[in-house]
Amino acid sequence: MKALEEKIVREGEILPGGILKVGSFLNQQIDTDFMMEMGEEIYRLFRDEKITKILTIEASGITLAFAAASCFHVPTLFAKKNKSNNVSGEVYRAKVHSYTHGNDFFAVLSREYLSANDRVLLVDDFLATGEAFLGLIEICRQAGAEIVGCVAAVEKAFQEGESRLKSEGLRVEALARVSRMDPETGIAFC
Amino acid sequence: MKALEEKIVREGEILPGGILKVGSFLNQQIDTDFMMEMGEEIYRLFRDEKITKILTIEASGITLAFAAASCFHVPTLFAKKNKSNNVSGEVYRAKVHSYTHGNDFFAVLSREYLSANDRVLLVDDFLATGEAFLGLIEICRQAGAEIVGCVAAVEKAFQEGESRLKSEGLRVEALARVSRMDPETGIAFC
Repeated sequence: MKALEEKIVREGEILPGGILKVGSFLNQQIDTDFMMEMGEEIYRLFRDEKITKILTIEASGITLAFAAASCFHVPTLFAKKNKSNNVSGEVYRAKVHSYTHGNDFFAVLSREYLSANDRVLLVDDFLATGEAFLGLIEICRQAGAEIVGCVAAVEKAFQEGESRLKSEGLRVEALARVSRMDPETGIAFC
Repeated sequence: MKALEEKIVREGEILPGGILKVGSFLNQQIDTDFMMEMGEEIYRLFRDEKITKILTIEASGITLAFAAASCFHVPTLFAKKNKSNNVSGEVYRAKVHSYTHGNDFFAVLSREYLSANDRVLLVDDFLATGEAFLGLIEICRQAGAEIVGCVAAVEKAFQEGESRLKSEGLRVEALARVSRMDPETGIAFC
């Protein structure tokens, strides 16, 4: 999505530790109209897939998931992040490692909202290591739901996320694929 | 908003401890089209207020804030919840008490996204004690931003939130105002 690449170049910042900061339009502050355009782009990519629900994880994936869901006219679901592994039969639960924070958490979703009748699109703002998506995949599998694909706004294509998700047999899309980012030479796209 | 009252009666559950569970359409699982209708209702209420930004707090207020912001065509902002009071000059920060979880957290927002030039509408899914809104009010005051009003999807009108916010001199709106809820006799609205 050319407009997203241009926005990343214009407004993104490369911080120490390989962090691409896009807080001015993608998370923290959200460029609402542009987020709706990204939702429409996701609709174009997956419109023939008979999607019944869109699933993301709190918090920064929620607006993109919702923007896409408003085009598909299907419910938006988000898994919550829990520190503790509370034992309860009422939820699906998957362990996720956060490389940003250097710890593990559990992605949790109430069982009543996802079932074997669902065809689910997984959405998040970033795809890097793929950990968050793998957590959502695990939740869908616990539910017996069919996964239609994974889509991120921004992929760090130099990390292993895409190949990890593809090795699960899934379609993987990104609206912008960063091939290289460097504080000195800037950002390049695939 | 009559349609919201009907949906609460139809899909809401009253849990022990005075919790109104509306996870099937308002949080966890979001009825996307209905959420957009609620956003349009917020637009009707505040359309003449020259709003420049809509501010909420993660995570369950985000979709309503975004749905409203898509009608106003302004940025959506969300404060993050932090457990620790990290000292940093780069953020606005306000202490919030969670009655649900029985602890305190800090609502945090980067300074770069809110300023004295902004006219801000505060949005959340619930208004009960008003604690989360008071945190957002504190953040706006640190920024010198003008607060246009507070709006919640659902107000527990039998709690003190509305009067606390009004005593701050603010306009307070809710799309549905629950006057009474009881597992035996059901839900009534103001």
